[in-house]
Parts: sequence; C-alpha cells; structure tokens
Amino acid sequence: MSAFPNDCPIPLASDEFVTLAHGEGGRAARRLIEERIIPRLGSPLALQMGDSVELPPLSGPPMMTTDSYVVSPLFFPGGDIGKLAIFGTINDLAVAGARPRWISLAMIIEEGFALIALEQILQSISAAANLADVQVVTGDTKVVPRGAADGIFLTTTGLGEQIDPAPLGPQRLKVGDVIIASGPIGKHGVAILAARENLRFDPMPKSDCGSLWPAVEALRLSGSQICAMRDATRGGAAAVLQEWGAASQLTMEIEEAAIPVSPEVRGVCELLGLDPLHLPNEGTMLVAVPEVGVDQALAALRGSGRSPDAAVIGRVAARRSAAVVIRRGRGMEIPLDDPQGAPLPRIC
Amino acid sequence: MSAFPNDCPIPLASDEFVTLAHGEGGRAARRLIEERIIPRLGSPLALQMGDSVELPPLSGPPMMTTDSYVVSPLFFPGGDIGKLAIFGTINDLAVAGARPRWISLAMIIEEGFALIALEQILQSISAAANLADVQVVTGDTKVVPRGAADGIFLTTTGLGEQIDPAPLGPQRLKVGDVIIASGPIGKHGVAILAARENLRFDPMPKSDCGSLWPAVEALRLSGSQICAMRDATRGGAAAVLQEWGAASQLTMEIEEAAIPVSPEVRGVCELLGLDPLHLPNEGTMLVAVPEVGVDQALAALRGSGRSPDAAVIGRVAARRSAAVVIRRGRGMEIPLDDPQGAPLPRIC
Repeated sequence: MSAFPNDCPIPLASDEFVTLAHGEGGRAARRLIEERIIPRLGSPLALQMGDSVELPPLSGPPMMTTDSYVVSPLFFPGGDIGKLAIFGTINDLAVAGARPRWISLAMIIEEGFALIALEQILQSISAAANLADVQVVTGDTKVVPRGAADGIFLTTTGLGEQIDPAPLGPQRLKVGDVIIASGPIGKHGVAILAARENLRFDPMPKSDCGSLWPAVEALRLSGSQICAMRDATRGGAAAVLQEWGAASQLTMEIEEAAIPVSPEVRGVCELLGLDPLHLPNEGTMLVAVPEVGVDQALAALRGSGRSPDAAVIGRVAARRSAAVVIRRGRGMEIPLDDPQGAPLPRIC
Repeated sequence: MSAFPNDCPIPLASDEFVTLAHGEGGRAARRLIEERIIPRLGSPLALQMGDSVELPPLSGPPMMTTDSYVVSPLFFPGGDIGKLAIFGTINDLAVAGARPRWISLAMIIEEGFALIALEQILQSISAAANLADVQVVTGDTKVVPRGAADGIFLTTTGLGEQIDPAPLGPQRLKVGDVIIASGPIGKHGVAILAARENLRFDPMPKSDCGSLWPAVEALRLSGSQICAMRDATRGGAAAVLQEWGAASQLTMEIEEAAIPVSPEVRGVCELLGLDPLHLPNEGTMLVAVPEVGVDQALAALRGSGRSPDAAVIGRVAARRSAAVVIRRGRGMEIPLDDPQGAPLPRIC
C-alpha cells in the first residue's frame, strides 16, 4: 500500500495555505485547480474538472451513491480522508451489485488549510482510484473563511453500472441464511479513536479502510448466491444487522464468540468499554448467503486476497423478541442495543 | 414561485435542533432521514436514500457534474441554499447540452442547526426539483460539532443524458460570433450582498436563482446553432468571457452599454463601486451563436418565458491585446480585469 502517502499520520509543515481567493472564480482558483488539483488526480477526464463531464455509455443500468466525509482527524493509521472517500463510495456501489466506474469530488476547504495537506489528500485519492480502477471525472472546490469549516470536507458521488440482475437487499433474507463477516470488525473505529485522542497502543490499531470490490467480485465470479450484502460503516456491524432485522421482520442471531476481532481492537474495546459490533468499518462487510452456499462463499472471500479472515458470525432465524440477538457464552442470549447515536462521531 | 417557502428571508424560531446523534448510524439518524428528510423530498427513489440507488437507463451518454454550496446567508431574497443547489446543478448540465435527470444530495450540518430551517431547505429542494422535473434519488447526512461548520453545507451531484451530439464549448467559437446574455446580470451577487450586510434598498434586489433548462431547451427546439453556452456563476459574466477568450485564443469584445443590468443592480453597483460583470448569477447564461442565427436565438430565448430580457452584449473578434475588452462610451476600449479572487466570497 506504499502508493498511499498517508497511511500513517504525517506531521504537516508548510508555508503555503489555501486562501479565500482559491475558492472564487478568478485566477487564483483556476491556478489551484489547474496546477495543484488536476495533475495530482491524474485522470484524463478530470481535465474538464469544474464542469459537467460527458462519460462513455454504461454497460448496465446506472447506480448512483453519494457521501460526505467529515472525518477527524484527517490523517489516521491506515488512511486519510481522501482514501476513505474513494473507497467508501466504491464500497457503497460494490455491495449494491454495481461495478464502480466514475467518481465526482467536491471539496469544502477552510481558509488557511495547508496546501501540502491538500496535495497529500489528492495523492491518496488518486492512488485509491487507480487501485480500484475508477476515475475522478469532475469536481468542485469551495473555500470558506477560517472557522466556518474544520480543515477539509469531501463529498464523493459514485456512478457505477449494475451487474446483478435483481437488487441485493434484506428483502431477500430468509430463515436459515448464514451471516458472514468479510473480516475482523471495529478496526476503523479504533484507529480513529486512537488517532483522535492520541492514544498509544502497541501494536497501533490500523483502519481497515480499503476497497470491497475485489471481495464482491470474487463472490460473484464464484457463482455464490447472495441474499444481502452491506459494508458495515457508521453504526458498525450492529447497524447493518438492525437494518436487516427490521426490513426482513426476521431475527439476526449472532454468536459473539464467532465474530472476528483483532487483538488490538479487542484490547482497546475492553479498556474503553466499547463493543466492536458498534464500531465503524471502512473495508469490511456483512454478507448473507443461503446455508448451502456458505463454504463456496467463504472460499471465494478468503481467496480474494482481501478477506483472509472471513467468518460465519450467525444466522437468520424466525422473528423473536428483537431484530438482533447476541448469543454470549453458555447459550445466554441478549438483544443487541440499538443506540440513539453512535459512540464515535466523525468517523467518516 | 409560491412553491418556494424561502423566496424572502424568513425569521427562524424553533426549539428542535440537529444533534450529533442525527449524523450517526443509530436510531436518531434513521428517524431524521425517514421522518424529516425523505417525506419532504417527495421522490419515490429517495426512499432508498442513504444507499446506492439503481436508476432507469439513460437515453444518451451520461453527463455528470458536482458542486458544493456554502452560501452565506442561507436564506436570501429570491432563494435559499436548497433552491440554489438544485438549480445550480441543473444549470451546469443544461448548458453542457444534457437533459438533467437525477440528483444526489449530501448535507453537512452543524450541531444545533434548527430543524425547521432544515425542513424549509428540504422543501425548497423539493419544489425546485419538481419544477425542473428532476428527482433527488440518493443522499447522505453528516452532522459535525458546533463550530466545525457554518450552519449547513450542501453538495449536489447531477446526472443527465447528453442530447447534443458534440460537446458545446469555447473551442467552437469563431470570429464574428455574437455573444448574448440571457438576462440582466449581477442579480444574485447583489441579493447575497444585501442579505449578508443587512443593506436596505428599495426595491430590494432579488437573486436570479432559477433553472436555465427552459431557455436551453427553447434554443435547441428553435434549431439555433450554438457555439458556446455557459451559466455565469462564480466570477460572473467576466469569468465566462475570460475563459472563452483564453480557450479560443480570440478576443471577446463587449459593449458596456448593451449589457442588461436591472436598475436595482445598477444602483447598488454604483453605490459600492462594483462591476456587474464580476458579480455572480444563478440563472443567467452567456450564449455565443453565429451572426446569422442571432435573431432566431434571441426570439427563442425571449419566447421561453425565462429570458424576456435576453440581449446581444458583444461579439467574438480576432485576438488583440487582451482576451476580453470592454467598449465604453465614445468607443474607448479597455481590457476587462481578471481578478485574483472575486469581490464576494460564499455566494454559492
């Protein structure tokens, strides 16, 4: 992953800063875009950045998604806001059954933001886009006065082409389906927390920020039948399970001991009283498959290179008292919390 | 235009506010989206808001554009940030020769923002989308702590279908082409300035915030040949002319006396020493047509209902000393400034 300049927090020093003039329609804005932004994005279509861009026809129905990124801090172990924005958008499309193709990038920058930090973020964006074979094709840059934003906010919109014939979703879930986590959960949340609060752990927890496309593609190529698939971002795996339970009117039964959690995440969670199920992920998904297809799906995920630790964490059962129940040691079963908010704000 | 609740600034009073929990993956966020946001957007596809959405196939190559909106104040005479975001995105697509179809909406909201203001903005978004026959199909809501943003920022991404066979652009300009303004210029800039600084004028200047699609469609249906077409937003008509001059290597010759300017805008500009050419517009474009097609184009624009004051403001000439020159009274000709920034930050 050496293509990413920011996989570890980097102390930023610079005597060049973004000014209000960079956000207006004059020469400063044109120079920023032409000399600083477009060359770093390295996309031929981005040459038209700032305007509408015409794209080649899609090979399937268009699939669209958008997300704003307000993560704090901007640089964290395993990624930065730029990498997060690109992979977040790609993952949204991938788990919806679409091949990610084109991305638009809108930036809201606080006056006084270091140009070197902006350039690092743009390099991460470019590296993530290259790795995932998508292109940033159009964009926008706004600058707001000091104090009117917190550093930089990104909004990425992804356009993909639908591959799967029918939309994947919890309406396809049925009793007996098996729920798989594509990897250890909670890594992004713990990495952000450690970076934000300057906590030192050994080893330092690192975000899972990455593309789910290879894993999704491997599942597809293996011929696995997929009932539902979702990246476990804000609200963590718990939010996905709650949503699946609510939408299907079934109960998601999770075996606590089966949930893959890395030692670092387990340590931090025990120390701070957090539940990994509620912590956000940025490169980990839940997949529900019919029981008969579990081995095939696990083999595909583990063989994709991205998900060696994919594991069955539970199954879909007839509706009981709660949408999601957790089986703890000795068969004790408790409903999973559905919190009002989330333990960590600004994780993406 | 009574569909827009905010065409005049409205004093906002509320005891309900956006909280950090509204931006996370829990119950509060789901309720905000399901109960407050989606019903006001009134779009059937927005029911899937927050995820990727599958769209019907486009009838032409996809055209994509994105813009963040950070306007201050959020409500101003003639519009608000919501109306601005929708029409801004529609106009970007329209002047690029595409029929606007689908829009994504990402919101970054400051903790403590009044829910009633959010609802008014969503109603404006919905009214603007209905009027322009586009749908808001997907979105995202982030909440940042008090002080980390200024009220609300919107990012809209538009997806349209290309209608015109070849891309419109300044590369098609040639000596003798005539430059038309679709209406009086500078209205949006002066409206924002008056609202921001609490200036009282009689009559109050009102933004031109509106859709350019009807005017563009009228031009197309009239069979007018169009060389270049551009909405004159940030940097105003001056920025469009500078860009056309730079891209074509020709000189844009503007007759100062021919530029349509409303009495309110002229009054404010004289008082404050501003040039209407540098003030932003949000529903006014420049169009360049071959000389032989001028009458047809003017008739189409004036007949479209949106552009009764469309007027010829100049022509394209062989390259002289500057990319844009202004002919003032008695034939005096001076180069148009190309400012470093713009006189007004945060106008969109």
